[in-house]
Amino acid sequence: MNINTATKPHERLAATLTEDLAAANTLIRARMASEHAPRIPEVTAHLVEAGGKRLRPMLTLAAARMCGYDGPYHIHLAATVEFIHTATLLHDDVVDESGQRRGRPTANLLWDNKSSVLVGDYLFARSFQLMVETGSLRVLDILANAAATIAEGEVLQLTAAQNLATDEEIYLKIVRGKTAALFSAATEVGGVIAGAPAEQIQALYDYGDALGIAFQIADDLLDYQGDSAATGKNVGDDFRERKLTLPVIKSVARATPEERAFWVRTIEKGQQSEGDLDTALSLMAKYDTLEETRADAVAWTDKARAALTRLPDHPIRRMLDDLSDYVVSRLL
Amino acid sequence: MNINTATKPHERLAATLTEDLAAANTLIRARMASEHAPRIPEVTAHLVEAGGKRLRPMLTLAAARMCGYDGPYHIHLAATVEFIHTATLLHDDVVDESGQRRGRPTANLLWDNKSSVLVGDYLFARSFQLMVETGSLRVLDILANAAATIAEGEVLQLTAAQNLATDEEIYLKIVRGKTAALFSAATEVGGVIAGAPAEQIQALYDYGDALGIAFQIADDLLDYQGDSAATGKNVGDDFRERKLTLPVIKSVARATPEERAFWVRTIEKGQQSEGDLDTALSLMAKYDTLEETRADAVAWTDKARAALTRLPDHPIRRMLDDLSDYVVSRLL
Repeated sequence: MNINTATKPHERLAATLTEDLAAANTLIRARMASEHAPRIPEVTAHLVEAGGKRLRPMLTLAAARMCGYDGPYHIHLAATVEFIHTATLLHDDVVDESGQRRGRPTANLLWDNKSSVLVGDYLFARSFQLMVETGSLRVLDILANAAATIAEGEVLQLTAAQNLATDEEIYLKIVRGKTAALFSAATEVGGVIAGAPAEQIQALYDYGDALGIAFQIADDLLDYQGDSAATGKNVGDDFRERKLTLPVIKSVARATPEERAFWVRTIEKGQQSEGDLDTALSLMAKYDTLEETRADAVAWTDKARAALTRLPDHPIRRMLDDLSDYVVSRLL
Repeated sequence: MNINTATKPHERLAATLTEDLAAANTLIRARMASEHAPRIPEVTAHLVEAGGKRLRPMLTLAAARMCGYDGPYHIHLAATVEFIHTATLLHDDVVDESGQRRGRPTANLLWDNKSSVLVGDYLFARSFQLMVETGSLRVLDILANAAATIAEGEVLQLTAAQNLATDEEIYLKIVRGKTAALFSAATEVGGVIAGAPAEQIQALYDYGDALGIAFQIADDLLDYQGDSAATGKNVGDDFRERKLTLPVIKSVARATPEERAFWVRTIEKGQQSEGDLDTALSLMAKYDTLEETRADAVAWTDKARAALTRLPDHPIRRMLDDLSDYVVSRLL
């Protein structure tokens, strides 16, 4: 991609990091191989080559370059981050019993749940091998903690799902776990491997954390008001899957007893019939919860941009600034 | 347990390592907690406290002590090894669709597959955190490699299962992956953390590798001739689950065309009816494959004992020698 013709922030970032991204992709392909078990690269390739945006590895590369790194290990860390992400997608699809991911049938549907579980485990182990090669215990510490936080967030989501007592505080913990933990680890390790000063590493962490939260809130909002052609999701998937995301949590918080009974029936008990999604949308309109959710996403974007101001000026810093806007501009 | 009344080798080992084992158990309990997601310790406790023998963590403690270690980190490594083992059990039960483990209903049955997948991921991440705390990159390298080999072995088992082309070479690769990799890593890291000389670390690795293989072959043999009251397994479970273990592989290798048709029908196609297990057992008797499998297990035990002779004499070394015998004496 040419930087002069790239229009979206993540495309401009990709154009700036072309060589690093190509090196990361080469490493990813080399390490997803398995001498003994050909099923592994089959399953992994299905997902890795399905055209994800490589947002997370790009954050690592961007952070390292912005902090002046010129060694080889940001490539290992970018591959690490993508492997952890891919492993969690494989396991998520088993947990969610999903049939589609990135517009294609999921691995658990094409092969089976067993393959998704075990290939996810393999990629997770491979990601740790890559980290070990960097020789940085601090990087290992950050990414091991992120992996634990991700799994904890997913378990919390599992137990909080379909429970109307889930409030915004719990929602934020889930989002920090399942999404923001890997974003913040991705930016943080980029600074660590570059040997950046502590306050810059903290700023990178804060940027990744806020960006990840904004990204997930935007994702949850798009589920209720997105253009399915553009997002590849159907409006109301989260409602049908009885997920307690921010638009619902905000509506439940203000519900009249009658409205609460509606949420109990459709989300807690999962007794849904035709017209229920429309009712849910009208309740969100009544309390303006989609608009409030959007405002929350924008507020997290502002935090992400504020964190960037604590870093020295750099062309990549400006792209990361645009990127945080873009995450929410999908909503406009 | 008192060392003077303990009669079985693993009990004598446990008695010798009483304090270390207690410290490892305390650490395991502390680290399986989760501030946010109570489901995690519930699921983990179900498995961790179900009375496994703690064989793998005991190997790490034994290796470290035998090599004169007197620091704190063998405890971390013992907990690490147990967490990796527990994580693989949780994922195995999902993959095998098991209903029983250690004589109790499996976690995937008591909670759900989702919890088993995600809590397994959590424990795996926790195990890496524990390793990072030891500050030893070499230990991290060994255990990350072991984790990748385990997952690879499980995927290989998945694709090789129910395929009569699976031969003894592939079987050995699967066994090395799913069982021996963690045994050998457990003994190796004990030596590494103690700063033992290279040839002793190699001997510890070789002992763990051979012990793990003997252990798994014995397990596969017990499935066809064990006493279900003693083993907690029913004779023929592997046959019903169409697993290609050594007694079957050896029988298939010598099968007449008619016998081959029997194995194709029962194992490859899974069309089993009453009397088929008896036929399978009679074919094993015809070619003496259970006896040959037992001889293979004994041969691996001999390799394990030979490896021990390359280590300095030590009371624990003698217990490890007895332990390797015991693994196969279950078969007598």
